[in-house]
Amino acid sequence: MPYIQFDGPVLSKEKKAELVEEFTKVSREVLNMPEQAFTVIIRENESDNVGVGGKLLSELHK
Amino acid sequence: MPYIQFDGPVLSKEKKAELVEEFTKVSREVLNMPEQAFTVIIRENESDNVGVGGKLLSELHK
Amino acid sequence: MPYIQFDGPVLSKEKKAELVEEFTKVSREVLNMPEQAFTVIIRENESDNVGVGGKLLSELHK
Amino acid sequence: MPYIQFDGPVLSKEKKAELVEEFTKVSREVLNMPEQAFTVIIRENESDNVGVGGKLLSELHK
Amino acid sequence: MPYIQFDGPVLSKEKKAELVEEFTKVSREVLNMPEQAFTVIIRENESDNVGVGGKLLSELHK
Amino acid sequence: MPYIQFDGPVLSKEKKAELVEEFTKVSREVLNMPEQAFTVIIRENESDNVGVGGKLLSELHK
Repeated sequence: MPYIQFDGPVLSKEKKAELVEEFTKVSREVLNMPEQAFTVIIRENESDNVGVGGKLLSELHK
Repeated sequence: MPYIQFDGPVLSKEKKAELVEEFTKVSREVLNMPEQAFTVIIRENESDNVGVGGKLLSELHK
Repeated sequence: MPYIQFDGPVLSKEKKAELVEEFTKVSREVLNMPEQAFTVIIRENESDNVGVGGKLLSELHK
Repeated sequence: MPYIQFDGPVLSKEKKAELVEEFTKVSREVLNMPEQAFTVIIRENESDNVGVGGKLLSELHK
Repeated sequence: MPYIQFDGPVLSKEKKAELVEEFTKVSREVLNMPEQAFTVIIRENESDNVGVGGKLLSELHK
Repeated sequence: MPYIQFDGPVLSKEKKAELVEEFTKVSREVLNMPEQAFTVIIRENESDNVGVGGKLLSELHK
């Protein structure tokens, strides 16, 4: 059941694979549960869709 | 208010309509509330964005 | 992988079990996937923590 | 840390910027915390992916 | 349909009511939709359950 | 901005601290971003509130 949602920027397939592998490894060790129990979802967000400190990231990173 | 989020694969419009209709029917009966109270969101995820057991679904389903 | 999150009021164990069973049955039939693939999380919210139309549910349901 | 997720329709960049700015301003005042502490994510949903009262929005708004 | 989730610290009922009212007012004006369309959920998180920069908030705020 | 939500069972403070530390370390290395950019939320779920394969975890783990 444990379910990990990663909300971040647009990423390459390789980086997504690395996050999935590493998050699962960490979770398996900390919770002492089999790898198959873990699901990871990577949500990629455009910089027009994220704001920090009241400003869109697309504006902050011009 | 009840709000149902379905995270799954890419689906046809017909299947999304069916999930919305059936989830709402089930919720209405179990909670004994009017259908209008229920919102369903279908989040479609590419197989590069989901990992199970430490591997991307796109790798598992090659 | 499919993952269903139900955000709603505080519920009895029986009603939570019924939602889990029925949501899984519906999903299994629509997606034609084995039941084991589906995870359902029931998030119970106090009426002080939910607002509709700008008002807390606890105020609306006095 | 406070994190605000807005699930709604597809929006223009100007409207997304306005939501980010105003949600951050409200949160800063109510919680009395610096603006930098707040993250806002705007999730845009197609009308085929949202259901209210058991029907897809795309069907309701034909 | 628009649905706003606020993830933050434990708050008083008054502050939750204020967030609901103000988020709804902002959303109504920006999207030009009736207030009744908006749902707000306030998720309160203990400082043991939130980490920033790799540390639990409870440790950072000792 | 990156934001990591971990949905799982009830955990000790030590295990929550470990997940926060390790998820942040992994994310920092994969995304090459400063640790301060990452927020982790640990959502603990009772076994009456989670279903897998159509059954509540509390029933499966009797």
